[in-house]
Amino acid sequence: MKAFMDKEFLLETETGSRLFHEYAENCPIIDYHNHLPPRDIFQRRRYENLTQLWLEGDHYKWRCMRVCGVPEKYVTGDAPEWEKFQKFAEIMPRLIGSPVYHWAHLELQRYFGIDTPISGKTAKEIWDKTCEMLGGDGFDAVSLLDKMQVKVLCTTDDPADTLEWHIKLRDEGLPFKTLPSFRPDRFLHIDQAAWSTALKHLGEKYGEITDFESLTAALKKSIDFFYEVGCRVTDHGFIRFRYASGDPAPVMEKALRGEVLTDAEIAVYQGALMRFLAGEYESRGLTMQLHLGPIRNNSPKLFTSFGADAGGDSIGSVTDPFMLGAFLGDLEKADNLPKTILYNLNPADSAMLSTMAANFASDGAKVQYGAAWWMLDHVRGISDQLDQLMETGLISGSVGMLTDSRSFTSFTRHEYFRRILCNKLGKLVENGEYPCDMEILGKTVQDICWRNAVNYFGF
Amino acid sequence: MKAFMDKEFLLETETGSRLFHEYAENCPIIDYHNHLPPRDIFQRRRYENLTQLWLEGDHYKWRCMRVCGVPEKYVTGDAPEWEKFQKFAEIMPRLIGSPVYHWAHLELQRYFGIDTPISGKTAKEIWDKTCEMLGGDGFDAVSLLDKMQVKVLCTTDDPADTLEWHIKLRDEGLPFKTLPSFRPDRFLHIDQAAWSTALKHLGEKYGEITDFESLTAALKKSIDFFYEVGCRVTDHGFIRFRYASGDPAPVMEKALRGEVLTDAEIAVYQGALMRFLAGEYESRGLTMQLHLGPIRNNSPKLFTSFGADAGGDSIGSVTDPFMLGAFLGDLEKADNLPKTILYNLNPADSAMLSTMAANFASDGAKVQYGAAWWMLDHVRGISDQLDQLMETGLISGSVGMLTDSRSFTSFTRHEYFRRILCNKLGKLVENGEYPCDMEILGKTVQDICWRNAVNYFGF
Amino acid sequence: MKAFMDKEFLLETETGSRLFHEYAENCPIIDYHNHLPPRDIFQRRRYENLTQLWLEGDHYKWRCMRVCGVPEKYVTGDAPEWEKFQKFAEIMPRLIGSPVYHWAHLELQRYFGIDTPISGKTAKEIWDKTCEMLGGDGFDAVSLLDKMQVKVLCTTDDPADTLEWHIKLRDEGLPFKTLPSFRPDRFLHIDQAAWSTALKHLGEKYGEITDFESLTAALKKSIDFFYEVGCRVTDHGFIRFRYASGDPAPVMEKALRGEVLTDAEIAVYQGALMRFLAGEYESRGLTMQLHLGPIRNNSPKLFTSFGADAGGDSIGSVTDPFMLGAFLGDLEKADNLPKTILYNLNPADSAMLSTMAANFASDGAKVQYGAAWWMLDHVRGISDQLDQLMETGLISGSVGMLTDSRSFTSFTRHEYFRRILCNKLGKLVENGEYPCDMEILGKTVQDICWRNAVNYFGF
Repeated sequence: MKAFMDKEFLLETETGSRLFHEYAENCPIIDYHNHLPPRDIFQRRRYENLTQLWLEGDHYKWRCMRVCGVPEKYVTGDAPEWEKFQKFAEIMPRLIGSPVYHWAHLELQRYFGIDTPISGKTAKEIWDKTCEMLGGDGFDAVSLLDKMQVKVLCTTDDPADTLEWHIKLRDEGLPFKTLPSFRPDRFLHIDQAAWSTALKHLGEKYGEITDFESLTAALKKSIDFFYEVGCRVTDHGFIRFRYASGDPAPVMEKALRGEVLTDAEIAVYQGALMRFLAGEYESRGLTMQLHLGPIRNNSPKLFTSFGADAGGDSIGSVTDPFMLGAFLGDLEKADNLPKTILYNLNPADSAMLSTMAANFASDGAKVQYGAAWWMLDHVRGISDQLDQLMETGLISGSVGMLTDSRSFTSFTRHEYFRRILCNKLGKLVENGEYPCDMEILGKTVQDICWRNAVNYFGF
Repeated sequence: MKAFMDKEFLLETETGSRLFHEYAENCPIIDYHNHLPPRDIFQRRRYENLTQLWLEGDHYKWRCMRVCGVPEKYVTGDAPEWEKFQKFAEIMPRLIGSPVYHWAHLELQRYFGIDTPISGKTAKEIWDKTCEMLGGDGFDAVSLLDKMQVKVLCTTDDPADTLEWHIKLRDEGLPFKTLPSFRPDRFLHIDQAAWSTALKHLGEKYGEITDFESLTAALKKSIDFFYEVGCRVTDHGFIRFRYASGDPAPVMEKALRGEVLTDAEIAVYQGALMRFLAGEYESRGLTMQLHLGPIRNNSPKLFTSFGADAGGDSIGSVTDPFMLGAFLGDLEKADNLPKTILYNLNPADSAMLSTMAANFASDGAKVQYGAAWWMLDHVRGISDQLDQLMETGLISGSVGMLTDSRSFTSFTRHEYFRRILCNKLGKLVENGEYPCDMEILGKTVQDICWRNAVNYFGF
Repeated sequence: MKAFMDKEFLLETETGSRLFHEYAENCPIIDYHNHLPPRDIFQRRRYENLTQLWLEGDHYKWRCMRVCGVPEKYVTGDAPEWEKFQKFAEIMPRLIGSPVYHWAHLELQRYFGIDTPISGKTAKEIWDKTCEMLGGDGFDAVSLLDKMQVKVLCTTDDPADTLEWHIKLRDEGLPFKTLPSFRPDRFLHIDQAAWSTALKHLGEKYGEITDFESLTAALKKSIDFFYEVGCRVTDHGFIRFRYASGDPAPVMEKALRGEVLTDAEIAVYQGALMRFLAGEYESRGLTMQLHLGPIRNNSPKLFTSFGADAGGDSIGSVTDPFMLGAFLGDLEKADNLPKTILYNLNPADSAMLSTMAANFASDGAKVQYGAAWWMLDHVRGISDQLDQLMETGLISGSVGMLTDSRSFTSFTRHEYFRRILCNKLGKLVENGEYPCDMEILGKTVQDICWRNAVNYFGF
């Protein structure tokens, strides 16, 4: 029996273990998509305890607590911080097989050097020890990132954002870059309430928006500004990816009059806006990320009491391959296809997306099938993404992992990914499916862990 | 090499073996969803031979026979009972890897103590030995159930049912409860021929049904009656789950006039009826089961010659997550969300349903992602359900397995499930992914095997 | 650690190894679906080098090269043959886990006896050695096929084809049969440009086509001709499988007038034509293959510069089980259901198709769930198809593997399949899930490898 989460965690063969310890373990981290607040970095935010560090904004942990019957008071409510942590610790043993269980223990090991399994019994001991450590050196936001060898961070930002903190961070001489990512979701979702507010915000900064033309003009200015501040990556979330050709101007006029749009009209608007944006990205060498397929804010109770990102989101529908294919095809035809990464939340889309990415390889692995995301970010989900790449894409060209997280200690997820990757390659080799050439294998692992990302995104 | 289906069947590690033999093996069985006829229990039905016991109503076995080319005469036709069994025995060796192969051998081992692999060569020996045993003590319907430590049985019953046998069974002092389940499918499927007959039947018992209001009034009376007779679980089957808001009254009028409804109208009617039913369930603490995604009666030949449940059913389409999410959300908003279990037949729905269940955890694991069902009730299907729960739900809170069967010897399927469960947890532990704490692990296994079900359903 | 791709490649147990080496390895090959040009067989085509043999028409390899960033000049362009091979060899080490990697090495081993891993370093040595061997005996098209014990080949042919080469081949006394397959895709896809050309071609051969009636009359003559030349298998590719009842005559008239059809009209036309064709197949004992779910020619760049089959195709949408079920049901009702094989490209369809096939088992495994196809033709995809058959179909009745290839050396894919099959059965046995009866297991393996195909198709 292997020891619980020791240094051979998830590594089942000698070759896999060597690949991880000799090649992957100490690679830098290029975290090209996350939701960290740049202000917390600039201000070297400190945390008094694990509740502030772990439970303040992590909807993964909230879901686990709720499903175990922990009252909302201890989840997002006003219970004292220690009691919140205690409740979390008490449910931990119930989370057998959950990635949240693994992540929490990896974080406890790597950031605090504590090997104890978390439970109601060990809660106090862990709380006290970590409180003490958090009060000392090496636990502010910058130190936490540096400890994991983070070299690049790409946050997620609205086109109307001032990027105040990113700009300030440029002169700080930190050991990593903190770059903004352009995420125009509010402008894409013309059927949502936030759309008109978004127009207003952007208009105040880049000129009044009264029609599709002035919208794209303003967005273009925003992209220029983002680019100047270091943005190399963009992001777009779709609950349903819709795409159609057609003139967006009358659709936008209708929306501005406050009328309800049909699905077909939304598809025309989103199609035109995405075509415009993709062209702007392509000409600047920006990467376009598409996150496809969640259902958001499914629980009215959580949405009413808390708002978005409360942990009431889940896997939604599969993506229409015809619409997605038509979009990418139209961009290619117009020579406007930027570097693109496709992420799915519904695992039934994995094979489709991996093969579709490879349809547009006129310039190498330009369209990538992206890392296992959100609800798929567990051993089986990560393993499936790697299998898809091996079977129908190009694993050696993959840009690897990202955290997609709001937490400063979530960077051990790169370690989780690297262990699964090295284990998979190790098993392949030991099973006679690939030659045992450690030089090639080691280089491949390092490419996936960080070098491909540096080259692909152009950081 | 492991011996064929011996006591370590499906158990690959020492830890898994201990979990099964020390904790799971002897747990009581709470079979909260099956199709057993309560009359057979009351009458202590006896069986002369394996054909009566195994082949009389088991469409799983019929499918296997047909696909092997056995003529219908020996499947559901009028061939002599011995010949039917002989044909079944002859095809058994061809069913490599089939759950039906495993189930039949588990049943032979547990109920009859026979270890012989079933084949044409062993058919006569097995037939003779089991015929003799079936003629002796311990093989009537009640004894078969008691032998497996069944403590609760929930059958499946129409709202118009008299529940005659359930009522009689209450005074029998049996070692298990036989409870009715409320299954209003005939009333939901307004587009099917059985709908108007169903209204008539229910009307005769609970007052004439002339519109949506009188329908719900009658159903309410039926629910009260079911509840009084011990019903704690309800069930609903959907080939396509449709949901919409809107007024059902005009739709029902149209249907009563014999006019064909549109999909949108069906969605309005089903949506309103399900909202009504869910509210009634919630207020009484009843659990609402949703079985999603089969195609029924796909073979016209079988349907014409035999009728429903002939074995001509298969996996159908995936479920629309937007419609299902809207239904559950509307219930939550109205404080009418009952305990709910979601079952899928299309495996492409697994991840979606598991994550959606966790969206509605305002009161613990209230909405559950249910056990692998029907065409998914095999090693890989069961394993996938457990993985989904571990990754995105809460395996330790799961209400575990059920038979969904018409057969009195199908209760070894609980053993099948328990072996797969213990094997999975054992591997996790031996692979260092969870601490080897046998107390917690043993308790978790027993919770899943039966205690969670007792608590969840309130038996 | 196992040696790289040696004789125990993909075989993890003693039982699996015995099944492969003692039973499967030397079975004949019945390749009932491929795209080989019969002319090349008749003319005993020879190849000067591996570029001609491997890279001339293999879009699997092209995709790999492109995704590695190899310029199109070396893929389908006019670069010298040696340079093309060199580029291919250089990218090989990057294809970790790809079936293309395994296939290329299996081909190098079996056809040329070369065990060297392919890479930039070994490219010249492999090139020289294979060039020399290709110049000698045993490397013409006929010898390559005979070397693998191919006994039956079914090519893919248009209804308007003269079958000139098939006819000539009948008198050649070759050790294998080369039979045409009837593939009326151009006639089915009424919404594609090739449709009217197809009508013209067929009309010239079998009488002018002016309406649906004259179309079916011409197709009937073509089927008769194909049958006479030895055709026993037909094939149909669907990007979206559509099916509806209704009168095709007015739809066809509309199409002939050049008007754009609605989806519903296309469904009526395709439904009627497929019903007609299926009836013709059934009455002649022909097998109907349905290949479901790719997206074709997704990359405008590749389609414009190269045309179809350039490697710009991917996995598309899942198939509508209601439409497919209605089609098969209508055929069964009319006693017109031919032997049918269902192939999916989207892996989310696997379970649905496997169970649907078993709905129509009035005459044994008449409707089959077919082998892992195209983008699924890798270890995991093949393994999944076998699992589906074991779980819900009948693996022992399966007609096994096919190449679906344009390459004369792709027949080692049968070996790939056989290794995966034997490994799976071996593991089942060694895990105690099936008795270790080598006689039954060996016969089952051989049935799947070739005997079932001979019997099913009636070669």
